[in-house]
Amino acid sequence: MIGFCLVGGGFIGPLHAANIAARDDAKLAWVVDLNTSAAESLGVRFGAQTTAELDRALADPAVHAVMICTPPRTHVALIERAAKAGKAIFCEKPVDLDIAKVDVCAETIARTGVPFFVAFNRRFDPTHRALFDAIRAGDIGRPEMLLLSSRDPEISPPDYVAQMPYGIFYDTMIHDFDMVRWLLADEIVEVFARVACMLDASENPHRDPDTTMVQLKMKGGALVHVNSSFRATYGYDQRIEAFGEKGMLLSRNQQPTSLERHSAQGIRQDPLLRFFIERYAESYRRELDAFIGALKDGTRPPIGVADGRAALAVADAAVASVRSGSAIKMDA
Amino acid sequence: MIGFCLVGGGFIGPLHAANIAARDDAKLAWVVDLNTSAAESLGVRFGAQTTAELDRALADPAVHAVMICTPPRTHVALIERAAKAGKAIFCEKPVDLDIAKVDVCAETIARTGVPFFVAFNRRFDPTHRALFDAIRAGDIGRPEMLLLSSRDPEISPPDYVAQMPYGIFYDTMIHDFDMVRWLLADEIVEVFARVACMLDASENPHRDPDTTMVQLKMKGGALVHVNSSFRATYGYDQRIEAFGEKGMLLSRNQQPTSLERHSAQGIRQDPLLRFFIERYAESYRRELDAFIGALKDGTRPPIGVADGRAALAVADAAVASVRSGSAIKMDA
Amino acid sequence: MIGFCLVGGGFIGPLHAANIAARDDAKLAWVVDLNTSAAESLGVRFGAQTTAELDRALADPAVHAVMICTPPRTHVALIERAAKAGKAIFCEKPVDLDIAKVDVCAETIARTGVPFFVAFNRRFDPTHRALFDAIRAGDIGRPEMLLLSSRDPEISPPDYVAQMPYGIFYDTMIHDFDMVRWLLADEIVEVFARVACMLDASENPHRDPDTTMVQLKMKGGALVHVNSSFRATYGYDQRIEAFGEKGMLLSRNQQPTSLERHSAQGIRQDPLLRFFIERYAESYRRELDAFIGALKDGTRPPIGVADGRAALAVADAAVASVRSGSAIKMDA
Amino acid sequence: MIGFCLVGGGFIGPLHAANIAARDDAKLAWVVDLNTSAAESLGVRFGAQTTAELDRALADPAVHAVMICTPPRTHVALIERAAKAGKAIFCEKPVDLDIAKVDVCAETIARTGVPFFVAFNRRFDPTHRALFDAIRAGDIGRPEMLLLSSRDPEISPPDYVAQMPYGIFYDTMIHDFDMVRWLLADEIVEVFARVACMLDASENPHRDPDTTMVQLKMKGGALVHVNSSFRATYGYDQRIEAFGEKGMLLSRNQQPTSLERHSAQGIRQDPLLRFFIERYAESYRRELDAFIGALKDGTRPPIGVADGRAALAVADAAVASVRSGSAIKMDA
Repeated sequence: MIGFCLVGGGFIGPLHAANIAARDDAKLAWVVDLNTSAAESLGVRFGAQTTAELDRALADPAVHAVMICTPPRTHVALIERAAKAGKAIFCEKPVDLDIAKVDVCAETIARTGVPFFVAFNRRFDPTHRALFDAIRAGDIGRPEMLLLSSRDPEISPPDYVAQMPYGIFYDTMIHDFDMVRWLLADEIVEVFARVACMLDASENPHRDPDTTMVQLKMKGGALVHVNSSFRATYGYDQRIEAFGEKGMLLSRNQQPTSLERHSAQGIRQDPLLRFFIERYAESYRRELDAFIGALKDGTRPPIGVADGRAALAVADAAVASVRSGSAIKMDA
Repeated sequence: MIGFCLVGGGFIGPLHAANIAARDDAKLAWVVDLNTSAAESLGVRFGAQTTAELDRALADPAVHAVMICTPPRTHVALIERAAKAGKAIFCEKPVDLDIAKVDVCAETIARTGVPFFVAFNRRFDPTHRALFDAIRAGDIGRPEMLLLSSRDPEISPPDYVAQMPYGIFYDTMIHDFDMVRWLLADEIVEVFARVACMLDASENPHRDPDTTMVQLKMKGGALVHVNSSFRATYGYDQRIEAFGEKGMLLSRNQQPTSLERHSAQGIRQDPLLRFFIERYAESYRRELDAFIGALKDGTRPPIGVADGRAALAVADAAVASVRSGSAIKMDA
Repeated sequence: MIGFCLVGGGFIGPLHAANIAARDDAKLAWVVDLNTSAAESLGVRFGAQTTAELDRALADPAVHAVMICTPPRTHVALIERAAKAGKAIFCEKPVDLDIAKVDVCAETIARTGVPFFVAFNRRFDPTHRALFDAIRAGDIGRPEMLLLSSRDPEISPPDYVAQMPYGIFYDTMIHDFDMVRWLLADEIVEVFARVACMLDASENPHRDPDTTMVQLKMKGGALVHVNSSFRATYGYDQRIEAFGEKGMLLSRNQQPTSLERHSAQGIRQDPLLRFFIERYAESYRRELDAFIGALKDGTRPPIGVADGRAALAVADAAVASVRSGSAIKMDA
Repeated sequence: MIGFCLVGGGFIGPLHAANIAARDDAKLAWVVDLNTSAAESLGVRFGAQTTAELDRALADPAVHAVMICTPPRTHVALIERAAKAGKAIFCEKPVDLDIAKVDVCAETIARTGVPFFVAFNRRFDPTHRALFDAIRAGDIGRPEMLLLSSRDPEISPPDYVAQMPYGIFYDTMIHDFDMVRWLLADEIVEVFARVACMLDASENPHRDPDTTMVQLKMKGGALVHVNSSFRATYGYDQRIEAFGEKGMLLSRNQQPTSLERHSAQGIRQDPLLRFFIERYAESYRRELDAFIGALKDGTRPPIGVADGRAALAVADAAVASVRSGSAIKMDA
């Protein structure tokens, strides 16, 4: 029975708490949040102790793993404390927005030897995973082009946007940069990015980029395109297309029902699933599976701090490309 | 160069005339129609002679084949005259609505030995044909169930309906009865039919059935369902589903474009192609191919008078089933 | 907090037990099974008491509802005992296979006034429900034809088949008969059924029908087709098509992933979901929702004993039609 | 009756000749080809005179329009001669590969005032046109991103490749550059391109780029992605996706049949149409319609020499981007 300490009871925290509770090999032991009522609400619901002080929870030997669901800027300090306490760590992406801090963090993890996992949940989506498996199985031969569309139905609230400039790269497309590396099992060596502000000032008051296209080149030669937008009116648009010497694989979108309505106006289906939590519900369950499986088997969790760093470096390069107008070379 | 005499310049006649004109191995030599202006209009367009008297055209040695596109009640007399003149015959379905007259006709054809073809065009549709080929290739093993949906967007005009009671069987579903026999390479031994008048009196003043479901049993044991309606608002709905021990084949509908429109209201595609002449354009070309090919090769055209008779007998049985309320057995 | 006593720990029982456990307004209090180890395994997993004696559980005031998941022939006796103990009842379909016993049961339920629910889960599937809602909203106007395909990938084991002759009607298509009544909000007045044994003797040693087509007529005039098979190699095939004066609605099949694979051999997608428990996972959750919701609100559960009886009567009529070769009229 | 002189009897010439022949308002008067047997074969088939000397045909007053289907390097000289003879000109793309020569050509066309049409056939494809119409109608509001996939199943023969280096831009993607300008009604202001040689030396002995991704920026701010490959094993892949403030439009691929095959291995459809002549058959008919329509109405043909020049300039910029590694700015 793996005991978890959840740090951060907002947003994605309750989702992970429920997934832990549904398992028979894991238990939510503690919820840590400065917001006492958020912690208590989860504690009551899932039978966990609550505190505003992480050290109390870390001192509990029933805690084997710390799950970090707080805002990104707090991650590194929490990782340091959890690592020093010898706990396994499940950390929401990104590790941090400052690559130097990620490097310090990586050293701590290496030195303490604690299992560490960055929660790039999309790797665990059944359809994306089936695409990955098909590439590995050689179904399309050598991959030559990869295209990802990664569009949100809405921009985040202004406060959130203000805290993370270029969030379209650091918060959204960082998932895609990770997917590119994982799907192609290769490193990105060149980044060319262009952005636009297409939303009105009323919706996007900080004029942070809300639309972007990025073109990447891989060390092995494959060409990659990624695009993102914060106003996909038709739902959460999440498609991947891998083209290779023997064929093409498409991870298509998903809809709430499979109803088809025929009328004189045409054939109509549901819009796409709108919320990422619905769209990726299964991926959240399966990433927890993978993390717990690694703890049980004593193996390294499948996505490490180096993966978190690599995706962040691509986001940095994308910003540099936008600012300079040039393609940015990366070491691979 | 096969010379054709087209009898009947209305409705489907011009379509066949254009298909003949587009070939380099056939020529439209004569157009015969009591309506002189209809004949002349086609004659001018395709460089053919015109007449109201069939015998003039039959006397022309440049006429090798007679294409009969007149109303069904005139078919048998025209077939008799063309057969006696030794011409090959391409006859629109049905041969006749009276099975006794079809039998007389069959004798004439047999006696004169002229090539005879009943134009069940759907057998030549590329998708239906691919389904047929897949069955023959054993892709689904032994066929166990067959389902056909055969729906028109509109009922025929009242005058037309008045001339052919139970037209839903004799005019529309007769195609499906032929498809069933052809696809399964088997004979129908039982017919159970139910009908309804769903249209308003304004649209269907004769209260002739406009909606029907028919359940058939084949000699070999397969079960078959066919349905039809005269108000498919979303277009000309033509689907076939063959289920067998190893799988299922679906001949799906077709649309004018492959555009997909995503919005907050959902994903919308075009309604189905609306007119049978568009939907089955390729089948009309290919049935002419098959007829001309048989004439050139000296082989028997692929759909004979016995096929026309068999489909008509099923339509008769469907009417008998509706009237009696019982399933009707057929000799196979 | 609604306390449940689950009777029958095999097959579908554990699924319902897990769905109860995932709720915060219900609790699995008891598991009753003659098979002690089955009961204990569930009891340990979900923190419930276990017994082989129903009366012990019924005596517990923490039990508000009895969930009956035993074989059909045991349902009536269990319903009687639970009703007399004043417990709400959630009963797996069918209520019984003998309509006279169902009638006795209905009297008991009426007399005791206990809430009673027959678990026709398909009514709660999100896509089928969306189709139902669209009919109710008038999207297709008056429904004129309804088609259901309801095919299993495999026949049940011989022992199971031996216990329920014509299981294709009583066990499988009884769902469809219920769906027809529910979707059309109308009663079935005529039943015509044909069956076949298509499977080999090795797979279907009892030669019980494994393939069937049924044609129904509704009191309001709509025509209905239902087909079923026990060897859909491509997965659990569950489609509904409703055709009406203004259009058509299709509840299409579902697949485990949305991956599409393009190669020189064509475009390939996953086969259908294979197991009914996966395909209808959400419907099982939602039927529990509906039952518990009714208990909380003090309303009548949405599917009653009269619905269970009506679907059974159609199954009886289908057998009578097969035996007599005729269409069977039903009182509506 | 518009008389045509076809120059160039190979490849695309016979297609256009057949489309002319199928019309009742146009006639193929002459076929001009240095290859006498190619000219004669078409002449016999369509009843046209033949010659190796263009001037003979241009001298015929029955020739109203010259259709240029020869290799690109010969286009300008032919245009000059036809323009001086006062004939309307239908010219296959590209006008020329040297932009200076195109400019000279444009002057001649302006000076002589002859109607001139560059045959960018894809603008006339019914589905692409429906996408264009939907943008114009405001269905997606302001377009923000445009993605085009334009992949051939095979590379051209080595001889053809040798004559046109960077043919992936000049021969293939030039269509897409035209589509971008047309669909967005906007000019391209920045071009960033990357290429790869993915084919083996046996298939691509000249090591000319066979795979490419291009990212464009429009004057109005929209971002555009185009990709191309010469080995789409699954057929001729031609997709367009337009994303805007109100939704998304997809021009999807097309297949030879609408058959769907279900088995334990999954659901399989046909691969895509393989040949561009099949895929774009309707667009070739409709571009001829547009050209002839303009001649009849005395209006300017819808795609002029300036359009041909603009697409060529983007191809030049793509090559410059590949060579320099930088994004190339364009005047708009």
